[in-house]
Amino acid sequence: MATQGQVITCKAAVAWEPNKPLVIEDVQVAPPQAGEVRIKILFTALCHTDAYTWSGKDPEGLFPCILGHEAAGIVESVGEGVTEVQPGDHVIPCYQAECRECKFCKSGKTNLCGKVRSATGVGVMMNDRKSRFSVNGKSIYHFMGTSTFSQYTVVHDVSVAKIDPKAPLEKVCLLGCGVPTGLGAVWNTAKVEPGSTVAVFGLGTVGLAVAEGAKAAGASRIIGIDIDSNKFERAKNFGVTEFVNPKDHKKPIQQIIVDLTDGGVDYSFECIGNVLVMRAALECCHKGWGTSVIVGVAASGQEISTRPFQLVTGRVWKGTAFGGFKSRSQVPWLVEKYLKKEIKVDEYITHNLTLQEINKAFDLLHEGGCLRCVLAAHEV
Amino acid sequence: MATQGQVITCKAAVAWEPNKPLVIEDVQVAPPQAGEVRIKILFTALCHTDAYTWSGKDPEGLFPCILGHEAAGIVESVGEGVTEVQPGDHVIPCYQAECRECKFCKSGKTNLCGKVRSATGVGVMMNDRKSRFSVNGKSIYHFMGTSTFSQYTVVHDVSVAKIDPKAPLEKVCLLGCGVPTGLGAVWNTAKVEPGSTVAVFGLGTVGLAVAEGAKAAGASRIIGIDIDSNKFERAKNFGVTEFVNPKDHKKPIQQIIVDLTDGGVDYSFECIGNVLVMRAALECCHKGWGTSVIVGVAASGQEISTRPFQLVTGRVWKGTAFGGFKSRSQVPWLVEKYLKKEIKVDEYITHNLTLQEINKAFDLLHEGGCLRCVLAAHEV
Ligand SMILES: NC(=O)c1ccc[n+]([C@@H]2O[C@H](COP(=O)([O-])OP(=O)(O)OC[C@H]3O[C@@H](n4cnc5c(N)ncnc54)[C@H](O)[C@@H]3O)[C@@H](O)[C@H]2O)c1
Ligand SMILES: NC(=O)c1ccc[n+]([C@@H]2O[C@H](COP(=O)([O-])OP(=O)(O)OC[C@H]3O[C@@H](n4cnc5c(N)ncnc54)[C@H](O)[C@@H]3O)[C@@H](O)[C@H]2O)c1
Ligand SMILES: [Zn+2]
Ligand SMILES: [Zn+2]
Ligand SMILES: [Zn+2]
Ligand SMILES: [Zn+2]
Repeated sequence: MATQGQVITCKAAVAWEPNKPLVIEDVQVAPPQAGEVRIKILFTALCHTDAYTWSGKDPEGLFPCILGHEAAGIVESVGEGVTEVQPGDHVIPCYQAECRECKFCKSGKTNLCGKVRSATGVGVMMNDRKSRFSVNGKSIYHFMGTSTFSQYTVVHDVSVAKIDPKAPLEKVCLLGCGVPTGLGAVWNTAKVEPGSTVAVFGLGTVGLAVAEGAKAAGASRIIGIDIDSNKFERAKNFGVTEFVNPKDHKKPIQQIIVDLTDGGVDYSFECIGNVLVMRAALECCHKGWGTSVIVGVAASGQEISTRPFQLVTGRVWKGTAFGGFKSRSQVPWLVEKYLKKEIKVDEYITHNLTLQEINKAFDLLHEGGCLRCVLAAHEV
Repeated sequence: MATQGQVITCKAAVAWEPNKPLVIEDVQVAPPQAGEVRIKILFTALCHTDAYTWSGKDPEGLFPCILGHEAAGIVESVGEGVTEVQPGDHVIPCYQAECRECKFCKSGKTNLCGKVRSATGVGVMMNDRKSRFSVNGKSIYHFMGTSTFSQYTVVHDVSVAKIDPKAPLEKVCLLGCGVPTGLGAVWNTAKVEPGSTVAVFGLGTVGLAVAEGAKAAGASRIIGIDIDSNKFERAKNFGVTEFVNPKDHKKPIQQIIVDLTDGGVDYSFECIGNVLVMRAALECCHKGWGTSVIVGVAASGQEISTRPFQLVTGRVWKGTAFGGFKSRSQVPWLVEKYLKKEIKVDEYITHNLTLQEINKAFDLLHEGGCLRCVLAAHEV
């Protein structure tokens, strides 16, 4: 390819400062070094983690940076020693790496990988601990090891899932974060069994994917809880069988759910990021076995609490990151499931815009009607 | 038997008021009604739950009452419909009932049984919601469905484990609470695998039983943590391989353990009842898979807390009651294991007194050197 080994100048949405509109800039993207992959991003969606870091509330957020972590594209070129992908491969960048050789990957107990974390956590690449992005010579930080709000990005090879080229990239970009997170919370973290009762707190993309996963797992009741009653109609299509709006009740929501279910649910999922709801989600679980999974990401510094008696009497408190899916191994499998129509993806896409319109897309994130907004990166 | 169907007058230690010395009284013990069993208690030990309720700090504590829940004895008589035990059987009263027919028992997921809870929680028997104990006509509350600080007690049939008559009752009385709690926390709740690293917070009876259970499960390192360094020497005999006294360090104890273990332990157990230590126990677990089990019972109203990130990055927070053992089914199995010398019991008994000396035994509970003090009930 003509661009191989060259710096590519392309459009990217740069977050120069917290809480200021992103600016579409001409960004220089350096060629991939050893163990790196340069990807032409075709489609990227927005997720709350982008908005959270952009807001400036994330104490680990670094500026200026290029945000974005839910995307799909095509490999443009690869650095030295990269064997698992080659130019032209269709890929999904993965913020959870999978190196298959670190203590975490080899444990068989977790999808968290430690290989490139020390670099991705501080916005640089492992090789030289520098960024591959710059604007007029000024270095721009990477984000989550993905930085997909750019027409081209550079990621570590352990962070790239090669997928079936038949999959429509404008859809499967969603398999980079929210949808797998919800499905995996049910299948991998909670391991919901047929006949179980389930409570889902928050009916955004993640909560709906939890409902979808629970339905596929054979749950008998899937109770959706949201402070926005408009969410219910849509949620039915994802498997939610009953709806509760905490605002319609005087009693604490955990008590409402316990009463509705003769003692509590078998499994609950917090898909909001609110520490008080995390507590309610635990406490609405059935004594003896109820398991609560924290999926939502709370603001920095916030803490969860409960009486230890809740755990001593048999409830289990867990959490999940990327739904426990091993990214490089399992994202391609999720893509296959989508192609076989075994999981939904299209249904989560409520809006389509271009990368140029990214600030509008951020506004949409806060509107009740929006699940995922997909941006076309090359129609700028 | 001559006493069958009769009120028995015998000695019992009555807690008339919170935090006042127990008084050895002549107590009238009514005959067992339908589904009840009257037991001649031969030996009883003391446990912290007795001391906690006695102290008056337990808001659910009812006075006057007869405390005690770690004991062994012989069935004196049985009420109507009792089929699984008969007079002369050697038994251990169990504060965790097992009816084998309630939602909990049939779930296959918990040892908590709901059958008699509504009565035992308020110090009475199910049949008529009254007590079987009285002193000069004044009714005395039951405690935990066991009330073993008495020469005779009445319990529900679902709360009686029939054991091998060859077992020495002065030893196996300990299998009524503390030792099974520690062993079961490891075997049933955490399910520690061979090669695991384990941290045990608190090296009293429960913590030592955790260490013993972890050693039997093949743990590679068993780190004991206690603020009393004298505990270490004894703990070695129970399997503890390393000792840390938080007082010897400036850094938080979770950080010390994480540093000692290259990222944290696979399993941790809180065997103290201190909510701050519960947090430390969770946070010293390894990212991705570390599981922390709360065994200690905190004072009423106290709460545990942590950052939800601890769970989102893969740690699991659990608790255990009676180590997850199904009482009637598994206490007899523990007795067999003791007879086959597969588990320790004698080693936890540091003191022997008589029921008459019970106040001295309560004092001993707070002395570092005391693990379990066994009281002979019929040498008054
Ligand atoms: N653990 C992970 O790996 C992971 C991955 C992706 C997203 N997340 C997190 O999951 C969470 C949900 O993401 P999303 O995209 O579905 O968000 P979203 O904003 O689309 O959905 C949240 C929903 O919660 C509802 N809600 C808000 N406050 C509520 C309350 N007090 N009670 C009941 N409902 C309430 C809102 O009305 C909304 O419908 C976010 O915190 C996100 O950061 C976590
Ligand atoms: N969950 C259950 O079913 C169950 C059953 C029995 C007992 N328990 C509880 O288990 C706990 C332990 O019982 P035990 O009989 O072993 O008690 P114990 O008092 O004999 O042992 C507690 C140990 O913790 C140590 N300790 C105190 N504060 C500490 C701190 N801050 N850091 C480190 N070590 C500290 C003490 O020195 C002591 O060695 C109690 O809370 C008891 O109520 C629970
Ligand atoms: Zn995301
Ligand atoms: Zn790895
Ligand atoms: Zn006890
Ligand atoms: Zn039962």
